This record gives sequence, structure tokens and C-alpha cells, in this order.
Amino acid sequence: MAHVHSLKVRYAECDMQGHAFNSHYLTWFDVAHTEMIRAVFGRYEDIVAAGVEFVVAEANVRYRAPARFDEDIDIHVLPREPGETSLTTDFEVRRGEDLLAEGWIRHVCVDATTFAKTPWPDELRSAFGEVSGTA
Amino acid sequence: MAHVHSLKVRYAECDMQGHAFNSHYLTWFDVAHTEMIRAVFGRYEDIVAAGVEFVVAEANVRYRAPARFDEDIDIHVLPREPGETSLTTDFEVRRGEDLLAEGWIRHVCVDATTFAKTPWPDELRSAFGEVSGTA
Amino acid sequence: MAHVHSLKVRYAECDMQGHAFNSHYLTWFDVAHTEMIRAVFGRYEDIVAAGVEFVVAEANVRYRAPARFDEDIDIHVLPREPGETSLTTDFEVRRGEDLLAEGWIRHVCVDATTFAKTPWPDELRSAFGEVSGTA
Amino acid sequence: MAHVHSLKVRYAECDMQGHAFNSHYLTWFDVAHTEMIRAVFGRYEDIVAAGVEFVVAEANVRYRAPARFDEDIDIHVLPREPGETSLTTDFEVRRGEDLLAEGWIRHVCVDATTFAKTPWPDELRSAFGEVSGTA
Repeated sequence: MAHVHSLKVRYAECDMQGHAFNSHYLTWFDVAHTEMIRAVFGRYEDIVAAGVEFVVAEANVRYRAPARFDEDIDIHVLPREPGETSLTTDFEVRRGEDLLAEGWIRHVCVDATTFAKTPWPDELRSAFGEVSGTA
Repeated sequence: MAHVHSLKVRYAECDMQGHAFNSHYLTWFDVAHTEMIRAVFGRYEDIVAAGVEFVVAEANVRYRAPARFDEDIDIHVLPREPGETSLTTDFEVRRGEDLLAEGWIRHVCVDATTFAKTPWPDELRSAFGEVSGTA
Repeated sequence: MAHVHSLKVRYAECDMQGHAFNSHYLTWFDVAHTEMIRAVFGRYEDIVAAGVEFVVAEANVRYRAPARFDEDIDIHVLPREPGETSLTTDFEVRRGEDLLAEGWIRHVCVDATTFAKTPWPDELRSAFGEVSGTA
Repeated sequence: MAHVHSLKVRYAECDMQGHAFNSHYLTWFDVAHTEMIRAVFGRYEDIVAAGVEFVVAEANVRYRAPARFDEDIDIHVLPREPGETSLTTDFEVRRGEDLLAEGWIRHVCVDATTFAKTPWPDELRSAFGEVSGTA
């Protein structure tokens, strides 16, 4: 089951069309991803301290309806089955029942010092499975 | 042939990993798209004044190597053949010969007042063709 | 008594020094100001719908200690006695008992259509007093 | 004489009022400050590599008239006489002859490793004087 993170659209995030500007959805995905990690594993800094980092390899967002200033939105976060060194996570942006946007981010696990690709630590791998219900 | 817009990575755009944060690439794509439009047609505000706006329907970025603070990067912008109301534009982020990222944005043409989908005006359609070399 | 709005520092807000970049404090002040207005009056959009807007005339931030990624911070918001058309609001950024930054923003009340200076509506004026305890 | 850095206001920087949002001025000041340093001394990274960093201790902006999307603006940067460990720099944002905003940033020189206050290196101190004409 997806982890859900709620936030309120900031005035500074909205453009002259009165809509949240498209790039901010990726920032929201990042915030919600951090909270998903916290819910099943712990703080992102503890992962870094343990020697690995997440790097974004690819991102996709499909915008279906605008999010507007001051609206309360829910970001649903659902990791797929992780690969050896990669993990694709699906996101939905909802306002109540309405789907405003959906997308995904493919992260790669890298060594926190060398930034070379490295396999996901077992504890992280099983934490992802805990959210997605595959663990 | 792609339109090229150059910019320098800002300190405020770089994160604790020392890399430009992923969401800023979409802002760069937007800046470069505005410049492509200017090169073949004119100012974005004149398009709005003429009654239509661009809305982002989908965006994709594939990050290949990090862009760092103070680096000079080139954003290559190449519109594909436009549809009736949509236009997909390809982007490449290059530092010299190195490809740092590539992606695309699918815009939809909307009425500037009602935000309802509307066909691309002929002048815009032929301007896109001028960049892509299909006009 | 100050209105307090809590938020968590986003990864995208932190720079290569590992600190929240200085410009984001003004965005946080804006978010917290919106929440202060909501607490004593209502939604910012309802103010705009009623015919006036807030415009920022001057801003000041004194940075005392860095805010870092993932930290929970509290923004304290305390409007001073409003002038005819202006209002200065004091802000403090605290992490628990620690004062990380303090500052103020001077807003001006403008007509939502012409953007000309206009006196604060009485309901807003008394709402500000309600927060500051001068009403 | 002030160092001048020119930039074009980005769509993503403009809010629902059609104006550049107030926090972005601090990002522009930072960009222009980096260019001033480059003009008289060299790259900011070389300063860090040499062992010191700039930290922002206080910032002030007075907004006089809005900057709008796609406008070409000039940021004028003029350092004052540096203190032992601090430096206040004045900024003006101009569109042609029009003054849109003015402000200042007080930086403190810190050790790049410990982030403890440290005196400005002599080469930087004389570089500041070169811009301000006091050297």
C-alpha cells in the first residue's frame, strides 16, 4: 500500500497561470520519498551515514489537472520491486479523490563517498518491500 | 537543427551532493523553450496576448551525469512534428561535448482564457517546423 | 502572542554547505504569514476576492545558525501595529529553543485590480491586532 | 564602480500577481555576487579550495517596483569596506534606468572546514577594494 504524504501548495510555487509550476512536482516527489523512507526505515541521513546515497537517474511526470495555491494535496508513494542497484517508485498527486498528476522516479543506489553504483543494502531492500507489500 | 540556450548553474540550484537538484532541469527546459520560441516566433507574452498558452502535460528527464555549480551548460531544444493540439519537444543538457541529461516535454495548446485545448495557431505551427527543419 | 507554523526543511532547499539556502527563509516567512492570516481571518484567496492584496515592500533576515535538511523548525509570526496601508510583521525561525534566524517583512495593502496602495480593510486590521494582542 | 550582472526573469520565478516572487531577489543577489567575485578574483570554488567560505549573516531587500517575466534586468553589486571577518555588499536591481529594488547582504568569512569565523584573506580583501574603488 502506498505511503501518503500531505502538503499544502505554497504561493511561491504557483505561476502566472495560477497553477503550481511543473518543476515543483519533482520537489514534492522528493519530499514524499524521504517520508516514505522514514516510515519504513529511518532518516535519510542515517542511510548516508551508513554509506550509500540515492541518485535520481530518471523522472517522469504526467500532469492531468492543475494544483493551485493553498490546496491540500496528498502524494502517494509506492516503490516497485527493486533491481540490483536501481529502484523505480510510483507517485500520484491527489486532491481528495481527484488525480492531479502521476509519475515515477528511478533512483540508483551509489556509494556515498565514490558515487559509484552499488547494490541496495539488504535492510533498505526489505524496507521497500514493506511499503509495496512484496516483502 | 536544435536551438541552443546556454546558462550557468546557480549555487542555489545545487544540493548537498554538490549536484544541481533534479527539479531544476525542468526549470531550465522551460527557460530554453521560451528562448526557442523567441528565436523563431517572438515573445511568449505575445502568444498569450494573441489568445493561447502552453500547458505542460508530461515531462521526462533522464539524468546521465551531474551538472555542478558554476558550470556552463547548453540546453539543446528540438520540437518534434506538432500534433493538432500537442507538441513534444526534446531537450539535451550538454557541458561541452558531454551529455549530462536528456528529456522531453509534451505541451498542450490551450485557450488563454478558458484553458480548454485548442489547435496550435498556424504561425506557431510553422515556427516549430522552422526549428525542427520540417517546415 | 506569535502565531507558530512548523515545517520540515526540504532536501531541495539545502545547498552545498549543507544548510538551507538563504532565499528559502523568505519563502518560509511567506508560508507562515499565510497561516497566520488563516488563523485569525481566513484564506488569502478570500482577501483577494474581497478586493485587496498584500505586496512585499521590504524584507530583512538575520541568519544566526544554519537550518539543516530534515530538521523540524518553527516559524513564529507576530504582526506589529499596522499603519494606514502598511504592516510590518516579525518572524523568528526556531529549532526547539534555538533561534536560527529572525527577520521582518513590511507588506503594503494594494487594490487587487489596480495594485495601487489602499488602506487595510477594518476586518483585516482587527485580525492583525488579534494576533499581536493589541486588539 | 559597481560590477553589473544581467539576467532575464524566468517564468518559474513569477507568481500569481505576475511579479517575480520576493525570495528570488536573494538568489539573484547571490548569482551577481558570484560574478563580482569572478571579475576581480576568480571562481568561488577556488576560494573554497583555498580554505574559506562566505556565509550569509544578514540580508535586506527593498522592493520598489515589480520585475516581470522575460524582462532583462541588471544587478549592480558594490562591496563596502570589509571588516575583519565581515563584508557588506550593496545591490541594486535595475531595468534600464528604473530602480526595481535595492538591498544589501552581510557575509561573514568562515573556515571552509570548521565554519568558524576567520579574517578575510588579503587577496580577497584587496579584490573587494578593487570593485569598490577603495583599493
